[in-house]
Amino acid sequence: MESGDGFRALDEKSVVEYIKSAPALTARLGGGQLDGVEIREVGDGNLNFVYIVLGPAGSFVLKQALPYIRCVGESWPMTKERAYFEALALKEHGRLCPDHVPEVYHFDRSMSVIGMRYLEPPHIILRKGLIAGIEYPLLAEHMSEYMAKTLFFTSLLYHSTAEHRRAVAEFCGNLELCRLTEQVVFSDPYRVSHFNRWTSPYLDRDAEAVREDDALKIEVAGLKSMFCERAQALIHGDLHTGSIMVTSDSTQVIDPEFAFYGPMGFDIGAFLGNLILAYFSQDGHANEGNDRKAYKQWILRTIVETWDLFQKKFISLWDEHKDGKGEAYLISIYNKPELWISLQQKYLKDLFHDALGFGAAKMIRRIVGIAHVEDFESIADASKRASCERNALNCAKRLLKERRQFETVGQVISVIQEIQP
Amino acid sequence: MESGDGFRALDEKSVVEYIKSAPALTARLGGGQLDGVEIREVGDGNLNFVYIVLGPAGSFVLKQALPYIRCVGESWPMTKERAYFEALALKEHGRLCPDHVPEVYHFDRSMSVIGMRYLEPPHIILRKGLIAGIEYPLLAEHMSEYMAKTLFFTSLLYHSTAEHRRAVAEFCGNLELCRLTEQVVFSDPYRVSHFNRWTSPYLDRDAEAVREDDALKIEVAGLKSMFCERAQALIHGDLHTGSIMVTSDSTQVIDPEFAFYGPMGFDIGAFLGNLILAYFSQDGHANEGNDRKAYKQWILRTIVETWDLFQKKFISLWDEHKDGKGEAYLISIYNKPELWISLQQKYLKDLFHDALGFGAAKMIRRIVGIAHVEDFESIADASKRASCERNALNCAKRLLKERRQFETVGQVISVIQEIQP
Repeated sequence: MESGDGFRALDEKSVVEYIKSAPALTARLGGGQLDGVEIREVGDGNLNFVYIVLGPAGSFVLKQALPYIRCVGESWPMTKERAYFEALALKEHGRLCPDHVPEVYHFDRSMSVIGMRYLEPPHIILRKGLIAGIEYPLLAEHMSEYMAKTLFFTSLLYHSTAEHRRAVAEFCGNLELCRLTEQVVFSDPYRVSHFNRWTSPYLDRDAEAVREDDALKIEVAGLKSMFCERAQALIHGDLHTGSIMVTSDSTQVIDPEFAFYGPMGFDIGAFLGNLILAYFSQDGHANEGNDRKAYKQWILRTIVETWDLFQKKFISLWDEHKDGKGEAYLISIYNKPELWISLQQKYLKDLFHDALGFGAAKMIRRIVGIAHVEDFESIADASKRASCERNALNCAKRLLKERRQFETVGQVISVIQEIQP
Repeated sequence: MESGDGFRALDEKSVVEYIKSAPALTARLGGGQLDGVEIREVGDGNLNFVYIVLGPAGSFVLKQALPYIRCVGESWPMTKERAYFEALALKEHGRLCPDHVPEVYHFDRSMSVIGMRYLEPPHIILRKGLIAGIEYPLLAEHMSEYMAKTLFFTSLLYHSTAEHRRAVAEFCGNLELCRLTEQVVFSDPYRVSHFNRWTSPYLDRDAEAVREDDALKIEVAGLKSMFCERAQALIHGDLHTGSIMVTSDSTQVIDPEFAFYGPMGFDIGAFLGNLILAYFSQDGHANEGNDRKAYKQWILRTIVETWDLFQKKFISLWDEHKDGKGEAYLISIYNKPELWISLQQKYLKDLFHDALGFGAAKMIRRIVGIAHVEDFESIADASKRASCERNALNCAKRLLKERRQFETVGQVISVIQEIQP
């Protein structure tokens, strides 16, 4: 398959020739010959094709975007230019937070191919670790670091408004991926759509209740507008627990093809919301050997720590750069310590409410929308699965509608704990 | 003066040769020869040079942006690319609302020259009419029409999100003009700056009080962020009463060089805020023959009518296009009449609060910032002027801080009337 623009879809055979033609990739493997190099398509990409390339002297991952969504097929076209924005975001976020973003070795725009660090075993997708009940003691520390750095340094707290508008304009180009989010997160779950599915018949009434909840839908309208209109920072755009790879001491954020200048709360909410989904799925994974009670407590502690550490790190970056080129809040105006602190508190409080709103919207769409999460899907007993999902759904609806009343993350935990199986 | 990029500054002589070289302009004058054509530089442009070109068979205005701000001089450089965004906005807003935007005949990007309709006498700048105490019975009707059409049709209520992001990206290029607003509206009035001035010594304490009003400054921070981050619609960006030309039956909006995708409330607030300034200036223009009391009532009625008509027209456009390509609020989700109405009411209420906030900020900056308004400047007695300005300032501070408590424009009028000379 070759198209006029220099693009051709790779397969396990042609990928060898492709690598040979790319010096940055052959160099990673220690030279020109590819003897003893193993190439394997991982096969579980939702959107893209991903090849793991392992040689005696080095390794990398090669990722190619095709002009459709892999898990749906050619019937759902999707620009392969997403690879350009993914590479751009990986490089920018990687520059700002190299400890938690894999290095990019190679990018080929016409082929929509990214060559990047192979996250070697025992790295696994965080979502799978959460399903397995594995604790990651550094997760909150690492994710708060990643979010604080990538969001702060791409916001107007650090950018001049001129830099900001130039960067915003560039990422406006990623509009097709934004449209996908608009549809599957903010629209379809709230209307009848043949893309929607849920654990039927158990949740039939729950899905209908979502579509009939006027107060909920009015709040979702505001969140959708904010998603479409507000260029607050360069966000990852899809920061769920399937976009994070972990070991006990490493946390790596991958797959930022949905990146654009949007509201910070969308990233923070995606991460926290997916942790809350993981929490509510635990009852479905409990068995005689492990009731998962301690693990559920670890998840709740991780939610609290992530937000608390995020706040601390974000404020600390802000203080450190308060005399910098950031133009949103000038120290010459907010020139008294108590005023500066009130300003920061207001900013973080608004961000907290945004995160709760977006996080809850991301939870809802995973239960009654097109794309579900393995946390629940892997619960074989449909009745048990539905019960876990209903708890998560009820929690999300409450967080979304009442979000402005929350002052602390502790209050969020109380709401989560009030919902009992 | 000729620079490498094909740009040269025109003067009353070279403008003749320029016109001869532009067929769209000579055609307006009825042909190739310019016999009997009168050319006059109007001389009162704040930013640009403006030539009125009158011939026996036709007329037009030629506007050239120089790479600095005319009223300050070459010491304040300002991109001449602003003419490109002005022409773009004139054409787009003119397409959407031809009755209230002058036609563009010619645009030359390398020369930063726009040729457009000459707004013939008795058109005058609205601000001058307000100072003279002239009533414009159609002003509210026309301005509500202009704002409803230009804002609705460039928002996500009408645009698909793809069109919207493309248009947003284009106007991100107008960043220098946005930066000027950020500085003179949202920053300088709230800090010590050598650009600031006020009617001294009368208002020394008032200017200081603005700089020390922590609650006010926290609110201004939120407005500035919204101005910088929120791409809600293609706004004029400088919609004060000096950007509007009027006769008793014509209202024409000019000078959109500050246009970009920003918050709608910034335009609505600019217009209403400048009417409130005009109101508070009237006591300084009262004399034995005319106490201006009736005129003040007309201004208040115009404020009420503008907002009420704007709401009606905006909602009516929204209803008319509810099945269109606009993607913010889908009728398939908001599918019950009462839900649709609640959604619209919430949208308009938020917009009203934004307009009050931005309008108040625009009032404050005209009293303690760099650029003042002729409404007050033309009051010769400094003590009397200061008293009018103080009333306006106190009104603005209250509107800005308490804006979320206002439900109706009538409540705003009550606050204005509570402030007595």
